[in-house]
Amino acid sequence: ARPTAASSRIFSTSTSDKRKLLAPSDTFISRHIGPSEAETKAMLQKVGANSVQELIEQTIPKQIRLNRGLKFSSFREGRGESEMLQELKEIASKNKIFKSFIGAGYYGTILPPVILRNLLENPAWYTSYTPYQAEISQGRLESLLNFQTLVTDLTGLPIANASLLDEATACAEAMYMCNAFSSNKSFFVSSDCHPQNIALVQTRARAIGVNVIVGDHATFDFAANPVSGALVQYPTTDGRVLDYSGFVNKAHEGGAKVVVSTDLLALTSIKAPGEFGADIVCGSAQRFGVPMGFGGPHAAFFATKDEFKRKMPGRVIGVSRDSRGKPALRMSMQTREQHIRREKATSNICTAQALLANIAAMYAIYHGPQGLRRIADRVHTYAGVLAEGVKALGYEVPTETFFDTITVKGVSADKLLKIGYDSQINLRRLDSNSVSVSVDETTDLKDLNTLLSVFSQGITGNATHSLDLDALLARVGSEYPETLRRSTPFLTHPIFNSISSETQMLRYLYRLQQKDLSLATSMIPLGSCTMKLNATSEMIPITWPEFGNLHPFVPADQAKGYHIMMNQLREALCEVTGFAEVSLQPNSGAQGEYAGLLAIKKYHESRGDLQRDVCLIPTSAHGTNPASAILAGMQVVVVQCDEHGNIDVGDLSAKIAQHKDRLSALMVTYPSTHGVFEESIKDVCAMVHEAGGQVYMDGANMNAQVGLTRPGDIGADVCHLNLHKTFCIPHGGGGPGMGPIGVVKHLAPFLPNHPVVDMTDGNKIRDSSDSSQSYGTVSAAPYGSASILPISYMYIALMGAEGLRRSTQFAILNANYMAARLRDHYPILFTGRNGRVAHEFIIDIRPLKAATGITEEDVAKRLMDFGFHAPTMSFPVAGTLMIEPTESEDKGELDRLCDALIIIRQEIRDVEEGRADPKDNALKGAPHTMDVVCNSNWTRKYSREQAAFPAPWVHSLGKFWPSVGRIDNVWGDRNLVCTCPPVSDYETK
Amino acid sequence: ARPTAASSRIFSTSTSDKRKLLAPSDTFISRHIGPSEAETKAMLQKVGANSVQELIEQTIPKQIRLNRGLKFSSFREGRGESEMLQELKEIASKNKIFKSFIGAGYYGTILPPVILRNLLENPAWYTSYTPYQAEISQGRLESLLNFQTLVTDLTGLPIANASLLDEATACAEAMYMCNAFSSNKSFFVSSDCHPQNIALVQTRARAIGVNVIVGDHATFDFAANPVSGALVQYPTTDGRVLDYSGFVNKAHEGGAKVVVSTDLLALTSIKAPGEFGADIVCGSAQRFGVPMGFGGPHAAFFATKDEFKRKMPGRVIGVSRDSRGKPALRMSMQTREQHIRREKATSNICTAQALLANIAAMYAIYHGPQGLRRIADRVHTYAGVLAEGVKALGYEVPTETFFDTITVKGVSADKLLKIGYDSQINLRRLDSNSVSVSVDETTDLKDLNTLLSVFSQGITGNATHSLDLDALLARVGSEYPETLRRSTPFLTHPIFNSISSETQMLRYLYRLQQKDLSLATSMIPLGSCTMKLNATSEMIPITWPEFGNLHPFVPADQAKGYHIMMNQLREALCEVTGFAEVSLQPNSGAQGEYAGLLAIKKYHESRGDLQRDVCLIPTSAHGTNPASAILAGMQVVVVQCDEHGNIDVGDLSAKIAQHKDRLSALMVTYPSTHGVFEESIKDVCAMVHEAGGQVYMDGANMNAQVGLTRPGDIGADVCHLNLHKTFCIPHGGGGPGMGPIGVVKHLAPFLPNHPVVDMTDGNKIRDSSDSSQSYGTVSAAPYGSASILPISYMYIALMGAEGLRRSTQFAILNANYMAARLRDHYPILFTGRNGRVAHEFIIDIRPLKAATGITEEDVAKRLMDFGFHAPTMSFPVAGTLMIEPTESEDKGELDRLCDALIIIRQEIRDVEEGRADPKDNALKGAPHTMDVVCNSNWTRKYSREQAAFPAPWVHSLGKFWPSVGRIDNVWGDRNLVCTCPPVSDYETK
Repeated sequence: ARPTAASSRIFSTSTSDKRKLLAPSDTFISRHIGPSEAETKAMLQKVGANSVQELIEQTIPKQIRLNRGLKFSSFREGRGESEMLQELKEIASKNKIFKSFIGAGYYGTILPPVILRNLLENPAWYTSYTPYQAEISQGRLESLLNFQTLVTDLTGLPIANASLLDEATACAEAMYMCNAFSSNKSFFVSSDCHPQNIALVQTRARAIGVNVIVGDHATFDFAANPVSGALVQYPTTDGRVLDYSGFVNKAHEGGAKVVVSTDLLALTSIKAPGEFGADIVCGSAQRFGVPMGFGGPHAAFFATKDEFKRKMPGRVIGVSRDSRGKPALRMSMQTREQHIRREKATSNICTAQALLANIAAMYAIYHGPQGLRRIADRVHTYAGVLAEGVKALGYEVPTETFFDTITVKGVSADKLLKIGYDSQINLRRLDSNSVSVSVDETTDLKDLNTLLSVFSQGITGNATHSLDLDALLARVGSEYPETLRRSTPFLTHPIFNSISSETQMLRYLYRLQQKDLSLATSMIPLGSCTMKLNATSEMIPITWPEFGNLHPFVPADQAKGYHIMMNQLREALCEVTGFAEVSLQPNSGAQGEYAGLLAIKKYHESRGDLQRDVCLIPTSAHGTNPASAILAGMQVVVVQCDEHGNIDVGDLSAKIAQHKDRLSALMVTYPSTHGVFEESIKDVCAMVHEAGGQVYMDGANMNAQVGLTRPGDIGADVCHLNLHKTFCIPHGGGGPGMGPIGVVKHLAPFLPNHPVVDMTDGNKIRDSSDSSQSYGTVSAAPYGSASILPISYMYIALMGAEGLRRSTQFAILNANYMAARLRDHYPILFTGRNGRVAHEFIIDIRPLKAATGITEEDVAKRLMDFGFHAPTMSFPVAGTLMIEPTESEDKGELDRLCDALIIIRQEIRDVEEGRADPKDNALKGAPHTMDVVCNSNWTRKYSREQAAFPAPWVHSLGKFWPSVGRIDNVWGDRNLVCTCPPVSDYETK
Repeated sequence: ARPTAASSRIFSTSTSDKRKLLAPSDTFISRHIGPSEAETKAMLQKVGANSVQELIEQTIPKQIRLNRGLKFSSFREGRGESEMLQELKEIASKNKIFKSFIGAGYYGTILPPVILRNLLENPAWYTSYTPYQAEISQGRLESLLNFQTLVTDLTGLPIANASLLDEATACAEAMYMCNAFSSNKSFFVSSDCHPQNIALVQTRARAIGVNVIVGDHATFDFAANPVSGALVQYPTTDGRVLDYSGFVNKAHEGGAKVVVSTDLLALTSIKAPGEFGADIVCGSAQRFGVPMGFGGPHAAFFATKDEFKRKMPGRVIGVSRDSRGKPALRMSMQTREQHIRREKATSNICTAQALLANIAAMYAIYHGPQGLRRIADRVHTYAGVLAEGVKALGYEVPTETFFDTITVKGVSADKLLKIGYDSQINLRRLDSNSVSVSVDETTDLKDLNTLLSVFSQGITGNATHSLDLDALLARVGSEYPETLRRSTPFLTHPIFNSISSETQMLRYLYRLQQKDLSLATSMIPLGSCTMKLNATSEMIPITWPEFGNLHPFVPADQAKGYHIMMNQLREALCEVTGFAEVSLQPNSGAQGEYAGLLAIKKYHESRGDLQRDVCLIPTSAHGTNPASAILAGMQVVVVQCDEHGNIDVGDLSAKIAQHKDRLSALMVTYPSTHGVFEESIKDVCAMVHEAGGQVYMDGANMNAQVGLTRPGDIGADVCHLNLHKTFCIPHGGGGPGMGPIGVVKHLAPFLPNHPVVDMTDGNKIRDSSDSSQSYGTVSAAPYGSASILPISYMYIALMGAEGLRRSTQFAILNANYMAARLRDHYPILFTGRNGRVAHEFIIDIRPLKAATGITEEDVAKRLMDFGFHAPTMSFPVAGTLMIEPTESEDKGELDRLCDALIIIRQEIRDVEEGRADPKDNALKGAPHTMDVVCNSNWTRKYSREQAAFPAPWVHSLGKFWPSVGRIDNVWGDRNLVCTCPPVSDYETK
């Protein structure tokens, strides 16, 4: 750090104009917000408001408006980007990057630089959305299919999903699945599992009334203890590679399913769980190139047998065919998912970890099967040398067969940890006289040397020893016993065997990138999903080694930088929401909902209100709400909405009366999913409180509140914050997300805890929080996906109170401007008292469909020909499109989208009025691919130009070509293929 | 740094197989080299060689083959990428990042992160080639046109080029231009110019016999001293903004031209030199977002009056029209350039600084005219407050009117520098009791405070003072005097007024990127230009602040990291070339040639051989060779080549005999520009030496030598190394490059020196080198473009001796493989004794042209339809294509290019045999744009599919569309437009 000058007295406060000139030149607010001053003026005129302030007053009910600016104690207003980056770097540098041999599901790994720069640091990859619009998402869909192929190959099971949130969540989801197939309300968990896996299964099971038995798998008696399933770790958390085949047979005989949580790298050399009968195999793909990042984000994987696929949680990418009869990828079997199944859901998983799954898949492609096996052999050899070394030093190594982790027994663990600490390495304490050591891809001879010196010192007091590497090597056996050895090939598909050079990898990444529409191309106007700018200054810190290279279980003093950053962020989020405390543990919005509901549940329990289990949810709610409530063990009672889309206060009142004693919570989205600030919200909250219930606010639309109103002031007791919506974490092509929750003071004691990390240690900002009353753990890592928190941190720090307020104002202005432009062409569903919409609005396609047969899907696909991503389709109302422009889009882009929709309206009119064929028209034919438009044989009843260049700017701004034609979803679900098909399939079809 | 373990004894050498498993998993050689083992086998079979070794033996003459491996003392073999990145980071961290207020042409600046990540760190931008193939380069051509517009607007002159190497070079080029227009062999340089500008003009002038008069511009008498031109600095190097209008009048009256070297940021507020009559205006665009980088690379700018444009050096982008009649950009007026003018050239400038010019242009777009002006006002205000502050402290400030730099007089400069040093800031020493302080965009209140504390301490001994910021601000006048004030608008074009948000900037960058073919798309098989992999690990360090934020004139102890890195690099380059010393100063290949010839010149002079001024150059030489020789003051004598493309030894012998006493040097490219290892090379060198001459080897083809033979062993005395060809610095879309030279021991004393930086200080690796005998300075910065040297450093470190040797072997294998595949379809010109080519080869289109009218240009443009960049056209032989595949391409890519050329050959045959129309065919119609192929109205005599999808993989690998049709070069030169035309032009045409 540069020294502080002796005197700072000359910088007294002053407000002269010249003084303003001394402010930084790289402030951020005008970079984040799209419309310029001149544009704002023009837009206000169209909207019919004299000022932004007036528009806001017409939009947000007076009774909830925040009448002061937000106050951030940690964030000065008006910082420049460069200054703020430097400041965060200084905070980050307070993290100590020791070498961690802790293991337990987190390992050092080398992200190949070509993937780092061209995928993880590339906005074309990280700003793209979940691939719901498959025709413009074939790049990442191909990569996710590669991921699924990788998982199925290595696990030995035929069906895999495209990632889950983390390994512990995956274990819990497996428990749900077993439960769904069985009437036994018990579940066995081996005590050899990673502690966070055990904790998460326990938390989740308790909430739905499933009894968890933690014990020794070797002695567990399935007959005496009927269970729906059993979870084992392979290799065990302390490193043993066990033969589970007998256990699996016993389980199956006892009617239980077997879940194996495992390690993909180990599976390159030890037997695939599918081969010894596992029903579900899950784990973390972190060590395939994804930085530890103090706990996440990482992609968990999940594979199962074919017969269980319809109950598998998460997104599954599958192969289908398109309008040309060619293979095309899309998300398959969506009817399984929470947003369809709602209160019948067996999982509330919504976000995946697409970006991280893609990294893992690319890592596998970059190394290929031989390369992965070599990395595994290398890791195994280091572990072997270490085992021989510590044995030679006089320690006991009880881990007979191991992959990368050995247990070392003999002297005081605390003493060893201390010696390790002094050599800047972290070991894992197992018990008072055992530690474990996990080596990984980053381990090198220097590390081995350090480790042996540490162990030498631990036993002799002297770091110098007389071990000889070659002698140790000679004693290392490299082969696993026959029963544990992998003998089946894996990753035989050409994609894993055709790329060896960096040039090839680069071009493959670019080839896929070109197929996908991202924010680097054009706006993505997704209602409820908030695709705002993910600024470079926000993204830069997440790939700093100071944030990337920390194991989540390091001693607290090595993570001081993280703690400072997280505490400042939590304070800021408390101020933004009006809450007393924030937990950063939930690593998705759905997890946040779940954690919030558990806090409410535990609160009621703490007061003896054990009977309070009814959760009221309006019909307009996102499907995740009822799913989360079910998983929290609540009973969902649906509340009706009136014809304006608002909560029917009468029905609410009736439902409260009906369930008064059992009322646990109301879940409400604000502004509503219909894009309206409901006037009654304060009354609604008061009614719930009066009946002894708590109000859970879904934070999906928080970006319409920030700086203008606050959940805490409105009356909510808990609210999750989608940091990937409101606070600029990019969508990553379908994850990661982050879903911290804010709570009022009386709920703070019930926030999530962690089985390994003491979260009271330097982390809590409010006295009310200690972890003893917590319901349990909701994410594998104590602070969720900690390494992406700097994104939201930078956003808040750079925008400041003023910038955040303006963001919200412009989100509302942009939406109202588009609504004003589109009003004469499409019916706008649901507006507020003054005819205003909030930050998003719905255009109704149903009347057009009735008149012409043109559907909302036709409109969505047709927008692709204009180079746009479709708005949200059929949510919250079937047959409609919900448009959310966000504050980051400028007037030019908003106008282009309006123009496109107006041209499309004209095309619909052409059908309506007989100028266009009802079947063979540009809407039904959309999207149009290059090969169709360039084909000599053009037989459609409209022109090539209308097909591909429907607006003048389509060519001048750079045509974006959908890479496949309209996809047949039904065919794909009927003929499910969720691994890479042979290349010949693509060539011949 | 992590502590070293106590004992390292266990790591004795051993070579067991298990031991190999302990090696890093991320080694680099196989990532850099394209072909896999299996591919290599297949390729050797096609080539007809049993092994790579055998092929090399058949290719490289025995007498010059290196019979041992290279030995690098600093680089261990087999390092992993992650380890090496960490090691370089440790070296880099030995640089001390003080805040520099040194100025003198280098200033702190903020590169907007969105430009950093999406341009400077984006392979789609940095791997593209010089835009010779304009149809697939419209993105960066548009950006360079923006740069030219920026320069013309701010300088007030109508014509600008697309950048030069650095400000001092630009000044020297201006001197050449004045000289070319005048018979006066003198040139005036104001002593108020930056010292490096003066030194470079002096060096360059001396070599061509021009007398430089350095003096006071105010008193200079043009009548008494007739000069061709006069150079002044505006503002002066010590900060004064002077009114030069009277001086310009006097100069013009005296028949002299006026060159003004200036600062683009200052020009936003002070009068444009074009407005007070300057004939040429140049300077550096560094402070428009380009890191100081210890001296470079930066884009210099150069503008002149319309009447002088044909003599202007460097590349000029101009607007022309394409085959569709639409506007299209390309490099214009190429007949001015060295490669055309050869021995008649008035400049040897070849490489530009395209990547840096593009950054500067994007910076201007990002800020717009108001934003730039605000930055200038801010800088000016800081300077003003500082001036008032130091005056209040008791100093004298002789700089009456200033922009960003003030001179402070009063106490010992050395004392002030020392106090500054202790506060981690650098001031500039002007004389014993004056310093200057230049503030910049990065200066903030903290810096101002530090500066005032330092000056306070300098005069009172106490860092604490009683200055009040507001009181100082009140005294600062913000307006310049009427005569110096800018009153004309600038950057009024829409492109500079339409982008304000980061989202808009991102999309503009992407839109341009999509138009350009780069190595991220497909191979760029340019003979002599070596478009090999620019690996991510090589590129990552160049944007580290430890390398980016150093002023080139900082005290040596702040640049220790640079010195370690550069010395290790120089040692390695000495070993690679077999030379005794390497100078890193030349910042392009042509500069290297020039510096090498100057060393030879000075060597002869040092021996009293003043008459030695003849430079022999074979007809096959690149045009830069004769141009450089001319500028070095030599007389070019051309040596003939025989029908095999080899130097005609008989003619050489005759020419040597003819010019024996005057023989200075032979310039020779090896292997030859014809792609052949000439057998006679050793004899050739011996003949020159015998006659007292020196051998200059052009290093353009060094990538066919590395590890297999060495210029020093062959007999060369000096050789430049195109680090941007052989050593992986990317081409950046037309620069930067780096052209260090290696020399034998007797030439070492004559390597470049520097007027500001003592280059003997911690930098020389050989005793032979001190700077007193140097001919002078060839680049503005002592170590050229120092900040891109880490690229070559990383390449050598990661490849090691083994990897470098294999690189060269595979460069030769790949070329021979392609030649073997194409041999049956096209005549291969020039092969070696065993029918082998070196790393590149020439296919002859002339017979086909004679038979069909299809030209090499038709073939080049047709390749674009296949998604390929054309090989080098008509060099070294008109009517041919020279193909250089490099070692980084895999067999699949080589095969696709061969297939494309074979399909094209078939298309030519179709013309030949009457199946295709001689005028209306896919070759003459190439390249085909999207709008043509998608047009309803298709009237060509071949199909749309043949036009756009001529090979099966064109679609499956992602079609790359040329964004304009074939460009009419002649029309553009006749109707020269080299600034952004009005947007309406594009819309209407």
